[in-house]
Amino acid sequence: MDLKELFLDIKSYVGNEITLSGWIRNHRKQKEFGFIDFSDGTCFKHIQIVYDNSLSDFDEIQKLHVGCAISVVGVLKESVGAGQDYEVVMKSYKLEGDCPEDYPIQPKRHSMEFLREQAYLRPRTNMFQALFRVRSMAAFAIHEYFQKNGYIYAHTPLITTADCEGENQMFKVTTLDFNNLPMVDGSVDMSQDLFKKQSYITGTGQLHGEAMAMAFKKIYTFGPTFRTENSNTKTHANEFWMIEPEIAFCDLDGLMDIEEDMLKYIVNYILDNCSDEVEFFDKFVSKGLKEKLEKLVNSEFKRITHHEAVDILKSANVKWEFEPSYDDDIAKEHEKYITEYFNGPVFITDWPKDIKAWYMKLNGDDKTVAAVDLEVPGIGELIGGSQREEDYDKLVSRMNQMGVDQDTVYWYNNLRRYGGCYHSGFGLGFERLIMYLTGVENIRDVIAFPRTPGNCDF
Amino acid sequence: MDLKELFLDIKSYVGNEITLSGWIRNHRKQKEFGFIDFSDGTCFKHIQIVYDNSLSDFDEIQKLHVGCAISVVGVLKESVGAGQDYEVVMKSYKLEGDCPEDYPIQPKRHSMEFLREQAYLRPRTNMFQALFRVRSMAAFAIHEYFQKNGYIYAHTPLITTADCEGENQMFKVTTLDFNNLPMVDGSVDMSQDLFKKQSYITGTGQLHGEAMAMAFKKIYTFGPTFRTENSNTKTHANEFWMIEPEIAFCDLDGLMDIEEDMLKYIVNYILDNCSDEVEFFDKFVSKGLKEKLEKLVNSEFKRITHHEAVDILKSANVKWEFEPSYDDDIAKEHEKYITEYFNGPVFITDWPKDIKAWYMKLNGDDKTVAAVDLEVPGIGELIGGSQREEDYDKLVSRMNQMGVDQDTVYWYNNLRRYGGCYHSGFGLGFERLIMYLTGVENIRDVIAFPRTPGNCDF
Repeated sequence: MDLKELFLDIKSYVGNEITLSGWIRNHRKQKEFGFIDFSDGTCFKHIQIVYDNSLSDFDEIQKLHVGCAISVVGVLKESVGAGQDYEVVMKSYKLEGDCPEDYPIQPKRHSMEFLREQAYLRPRTNMFQALFRVRSMAAFAIHEYFQKNGYIYAHTPLITTADCEGENQMFKVTTLDFNNLPMVDGSVDMSQDLFKKQSYITGTGQLHGEAMAMAFKKIYTFGPTFRTENSNTKTHANEFWMIEPEIAFCDLDGLMDIEEDMLKYIVNYILDNCSDEVEFFDKFVSKGLKEKLEKLVNSEFKRITHHEAVDILKSANVKWEFEPSYDDDIAKEHEKYITEYFNGPVFITDWPKDIKAWYMKLNGDDKTVAAVDLEVPGIGELIGGSQREEDYDKLVSRMNQMGVDQDTVYWYNNLRRYGGCYHSGFGLGFERLIMYLTGVENIRDVIAFPRTPGNCDF
Repeated sequence: MDLKELFLDIKSYVGNEITLSGWIRNHRKQKEFGFIDFSDGTCFKHIQIVYDNSLSDFDEIQKLHVGCAISVVGVLKESVGAGQDYEVVMKSYKLEGDCPEDYPIQPKRHSMEFLREQAYLRPRTNMFQALFRVRSMAAFAIHEYFQKNGYIYAHTPLITTADCEGENQMFKVTTLDFNNLPMVDGSVDMSQDLFKKQSYITGTGQLHGEAMAMAFKKIYTFGPTFRTENSNTKTHANEFWMIEPEIAFCDLDGLMDIEEDMLKYIVNYILDNCSDEVEFFDKFVSKGLKEKLEKLVNSEFKRITHHEAVDILKSANVKWEFEPSYDDDIAKEHEKYITEYFNGPVFITDWPKDIKAWYMKLNGDDKTVAAVDLEVPGIGELIGGSQREEDYDKLVSRMNQMGVDQDTVYWYNNLRRYGGCYHSGFGLGFERLIMYLTGVENIRDVIAFPRTPGNCDF
């Protein structure tokens, strides 16, 4: 049986013979006894397996190394020892897979840097057991939230020929042989590639998401996205997952309602379903994490404009590194101040148009766009969204101003011609959410096999 | 409100004023009345909106085209007309987005070929409303099944440097400029690429999935995969979604139990949650679909070996196009015969090693591997799985025999050294499942924006 199943109602198994299969996380040996710290990865909890020299293969058992895979038949007992409530008294065992003494994962504290170099083994540690379980549960919470609320899960394509993000920000994909490229007139003949033109892997599903929202009213995407950014920071990865809902007949206020509701749902789900993991992170990674999450669930998110935010920053008695400006983005230090000022999450709306994307709806003032960033205490910007420009002429004029190629996205523009409507959407970086939920500060640690510049091993 | 919400308990709204936002699917005009066929995409059902010339803007309303986005305030009534039980009597309306008369999607039967050329608009038709809603629901059923059963959702990476699938089957990804490639010693200098070596987008998450299963016991992946196959058939696409569960301490029998249980869960979920859609497909796409699905849920899947299957085929009184052989794969005609012979789904196990993948566990006979294909009436092979070779030496020897590069997957082999155990997994092509659930026969129609050779528009 799985440990998860056992721990759901462990009392009822006392006195029963059970069979477990899993791994030895630690092994303490005494002359006549032994204690195996056993886990099977189905839940955060381990169980202790005890054995003594009444077993005929006692000497063999004592030789079992940390990391071995074993199956054990034993009887569940209430424990008399300190440290645990229950233990399994071994009757027999089977060695399923041996593990040498030089196994890299030993029962001691390894540095996160060391564990990154053992990416294929680190999921076996408590830290990454907790991390990737929270990641899995948060993914499900997101699906459940949107499905319960009538959204369609849209699988938008990853391969695309639309280069309106700026082709330098996208990976090119090809089936051509780099060392034998077909040439025509001195240039590579892309018509000989599989799709007969230059194609990319995309950094967003939004454009296709909007097409789906014009049919299903409420949709969400949840899939991998890519960016070529050659940047080695704690928050950048070249491959990451995004959630991008898109909602027809929804304005910026409606969008903020959805963002707040969704985020509270996810956090509640994690508090309810990953309490062991949250305790662990609270204790070993980020003191006060649990309180932070509980506070978010019970807070009402504040809504202010970018202009109001800058007013607050300007009147603050703070020596800023970056001077706040009505025309500029706000810096990390500003985000922090604003969330502390309101003592909770803050939506900042109506940003200067020049620092935001071309598809955002221009406000009546002709200076700002109907964009909204959600700033959350402890992490800063967590979600970015906007109402989309639904006016065909305004959209095209904005694309012209900003030099966005329209040939490959004529269909996107056409959505405005064929029964378009006011609509809004947002993007939630899934890794950023996991960092928020766990307090873990490096994106390389919330992705099982992270891809960053120069790093694509495993 | 959403139509989905309305139809959940429509009786209770009779006499109430409601507000709807959505699209005009059809518009019949009479001298003193008009009837709008209205849908908002939140459910398969439409509702009829009636108006008459008591409204001051009657003439304007009569001019509304098919495809327009409108918001309507009206009163829900039981309908006196034929064809529907309820209708909304319009009190006022707002035109949210106009639509010209040359709108490509008109209320008539369009060919599937025509609709493929309008991929960004076709989700608005009944056919694709039904298809993509089933797709979304089936995706959720899969997540729910695995999460309920304690599996961890593993996000395996898409970008990889492992080329053990054969590099010709994978798309290369790069940030290099094709027209200005850095050269060294007459070859392209891949060390100047973002990951400092040749990288690909992957066709499987299995290898990384196995690493996760050795930590969490039961995991599943669900994400996009890619193949470069230059093949224009009804069943091939270059980008598609796969589900790849991997289970530690699980043999081939255990794997078949899981496959059967999962498939029945998904089919039941669709029968319960997409009854309107299933009725539609049954009526217009594949007669008998509903009965086929209900039968699957109630059948017990048969289990036979490849050898036994060939015995049956050889003794059949059939003139085969391809002669059945103990050493060969079985053809489409054989799959069909076997499922008809048993009148239900059949697991075929223990395949000749030479026609299966290098990572499959060699049986004691040294001739066959512990692989299993699930053959399902009406579609043929739906799921392929195997027990994995857990013996390090046997795995390496097999990779050598089959010329599989080991440098980039040393870590995968090492899983056998560090507490490996017997384990199994399978791959379910998501599009193939959707084709089975809907009866739709071309993979280009179950993917919103399909990618096939020469086709990467939209």
